Amino acid sequence: MTPRVVVDGGRLLGRLDELARVTATPGRGVTREAWGPHDVAARDLVAGWMSRSGLAPEVDAAANLIGRSPGQEGRWLASGSHLDTVVHGGPLDGVYGVVAALEAASSLHDVGHTMAHGLLVAAFANEEGARGTAGMTGSYGCIGALDAGWLDEVDDDGVSVRQRIADAGGDPGHIAAAQWPVDQIDAFVELHIEQGPVLDRAGARIGVVTGITGRQALDLHVVGAANHAGTTPMDLRHDALAAAAEIVLAIEGLPRSGGIRVATCGHIGAVPNVRNVVPGDVTLGVELRDQSTAAIDAAMRELEAILDRVADLRRVTIVKEWGQRVPPRLAATHIAASVRRAATENDLAFVELPSGAGHDAQVIAEAVPIGMIFVPSIGGLSHAPDERTEPSDLVAGAQVLLDTLLDLDRPRGER
Amino acid sequence: MTPRVVVDGGRLLGRLDELARVTATPGRGVTREAWGPHDVAARDLVAGWMSRSGLAPEVDAAANLIGRSPGQEGRWLASGSHLDTVVHGGPLDGVYGVVAALEAASSLHDVGHTMAHGLLVAAFANEEGARGTAGMTGSYGCIGALDAGWLDEVDDDGVSVRQRIADAGGDPGHIAAAQWPVDQIDAFVELHIEQGPVLDRAGARIGVVTGITGRQALDLHVVGAANHAGTTPMDLRHDALAAAAEIVLAIEGLPRSGGIRVATCGHIGAVPNVRNVVPGDVTLGVELRDQSTAAIDAAMRELEAILDRVADLRRVTIVKEWGQRVPPRLAATHIAASVRRAATENDLAFVELPSGAGHDAQVIAEAVPIGMIFVPSIGGLSHAPDERTEPSDLVAGAQVLLDTLLDLDRPRGER
Repeated sequence: MTPRVVVDGGRLLGRLDELARVTATPGRGVTREAWGPHDVAARDLVAGWMSRSGLAPEVDAAANLIGRSPGQEGRWLASGSHLDTVVHGGPLDGVYGVVAALEAASSLHDVGHTMAHGLLVAAFANEEGARGTAGMTGSYGCIGALDAGWLDEVDDDGVSVRQRIADAGGDPGHIAAAQWPVDQIDAFVELHIEQGPVLDRAGARIGVVTGITGRQALDLHVVGAANHAGTTPMDLRHDALAAAAEIVLAIEGLPRSGGIRVATCGHIGAVPNVRNVVPGDVTLGVELRDQSTAAIDAAMRELEAILDRVADLRRVTIVKEWGQRVPPRLAATHIAASVRRAATENDLAFVELPSGAGHDAQVIAEAVPIGMIFVPSIGGLSHAPDERTEPSDLVAGAQVLLDTLLDLDRPRGER
Repeated sequence: MTPRVVVDGGRLLGRLDELARVTATPGRGVTREAWGPHDVAARDLVAGWMSRSGLAPEVDAAANLIGRSPGQEGRWLASGSHLDTVVHGGPLDGVYGVVAALEAASSLHDVGHTMAHGLLVAAFANEEGARGTAGMTGSYGCIGALDAGWLDEVDDDGVSVRQRIADAGGDPGHIAAAQWPVDQIDAFVELHIEQGPVLDRAGARIGVVTGITGRQALDLHVVGAANHAGTTPMDLRHDALAAAAEIVLAIEGLPRSGGIRVATCGHIGAVPNVRNVVPGDVTLGVELRDQSTAAIDAAMRELEAILDRVADLRRVTIVKEWGQRVPPRLAATHIAASVRRAATENDLAFVELPSGAGHDAQVIAEAVPIGMIFVPSIGGLSHAPDERTEPSDLVAGAQVLLDTLLDLDRPRGER
């Protein structure tokens, strides 16, 4: 057995601190909107660290930062995440996975360990969907899916994604150049904070991600009749808000009855929305998430039956528009097995869980076997200035990432 | 028995048509915001008709138009309503009650009938609450309740009610001069369209109003915890919208269980109100209406118990703020009896019902015995350009108003 390679926890935490200071909103969380000056400044900082760790950094056509350290065989292991944040976000979402992948490369470089695989460290552009864009722009570029429709998308400021990428040093005119040689990549492993409460509640230090849940969006428009709240008797009303309230509770009930993992109504709008008028129109924004396409389909059928019943009983019209569907992605079982072994070797309690949030790995999974590693989010908090993980957990997660990559570097029979 | 005095239906309908053309929004309903040029133009038109009907018109200190025809005894009967409308309102709300009271005076004048009582016809200023003001300004002036606090109120355009009244020909510096000699007024009778569907559904042509419902406002703030809709398991959520949905349905259920007439949640707002975040904060705007103060009190107690239970079961905080309370007002039984007699004499099917909407009569009732007469609103529609009543019903309502006034003019023993 080769001597153990150990990550440098101080360096890892120091780099996270340094990146947390690259923010458009000092004192009010970390704000690095994709492609903007703070995002580019963070990318430049990481590129410098890559150069000192044996990784040749390059900004690709999709404005991703990619660092490569070739191996002995022409095959690759990839890791990384994103540097951009939501507005008033935290210091860990995304950036931790980039810095930890860099730390794995740095640690190997420090001790002169050369893997059989080459190592590719990625900082994907615009995971979060800056300024109203769809998000995951960079990772879609890496699998060759960033087409003209994507590039022509215009953000909330009226600027096209094409222009944003060009401004951030990418080359949208040759976007195909960002595509990875996916047949040569054996695994992509993304380390991320959980952004949920499961590990924290369970007292586990590592999450072995079984897959990334699919997501089905739904827009509902409940049409009743606006009427005077004083003069319209209860039995003559067509109250769109009361109908919507039944729907909200039915959606909340889907996971109990239909086996879907989570179902949420996060958006509501009422018209005319004044105290003394029975609401005539209500819109709802809904999403269903599960690791199983069949479970999502079953929940959709169940919800449609509920909507028909509510419309009938309450004499309202319900217009439904099933929206974007992001299919579920399973982690490759051999990569999850490597993560479990790495956690066990490091004496770290782990739980297996799906990722409820979307991640770059979900996109990369369309072309490359993927795995994900979670570390606990204190209180489950994320996308907020107080997003935190215990420093010891951050270091442990980076060690598990390194050991997972080393495990995957071994021929299957030797793992 | 004296010969019957009959209203001139053609004149009544012609005056309504003429007033409907005095609008800031031709082709898009009737818009006469209180104190504005179209409201003043309508008032001037009515003042001219008053002069030709034996009513001496005067714009009082509160910018009300008051027409008086003295009687034989120094005592008065009063009738009227308002000429102002909501934005994009209809041709009948308010104005019908003014024109019909004027028609009663005109018909009496035409045949030289002199009542024992003097007749006072009022067109009250700003019943609707123009530009965000509280409304009922003119009628509050008539009972001496328009104090400095009211006059200093600033509307949505930043103009004080005091200034608005002055601009419309009132005299806010001597506002007390608008107060009626209430001890000399035996009755105020207001004729109005129902603005609800009860008469239309029942096939009745006259509504004998038993009282004007009281109204209790309530603001609720449901505080849960905003969380990622993908990563937060259902059993760890504090979903403010799901809690609010239970409350909305409980409010809708109050009339079934607690005997209150109507309960409405007309306003809802959620934060952050995006599809992929469990809502953390929801505000609700609620109102309860009933003719009985005790019923309102009972519903308030029942709702508070429901709120406590929802907060407890759903682990959310519910902050409640009981807001404005307008007390219920009963119609004087002898005035309602006169209305019933008048409807019966005219062979008009009537129903007794409370007024769910507020009216000037509700304010005048603080100082003078009141009654109200309703005519059907087709489809229950009001506050909309398509607000309509059958012409025959409009004429019938004016006849009932005249006959009610004549009945009230008789000594009690002779009615």
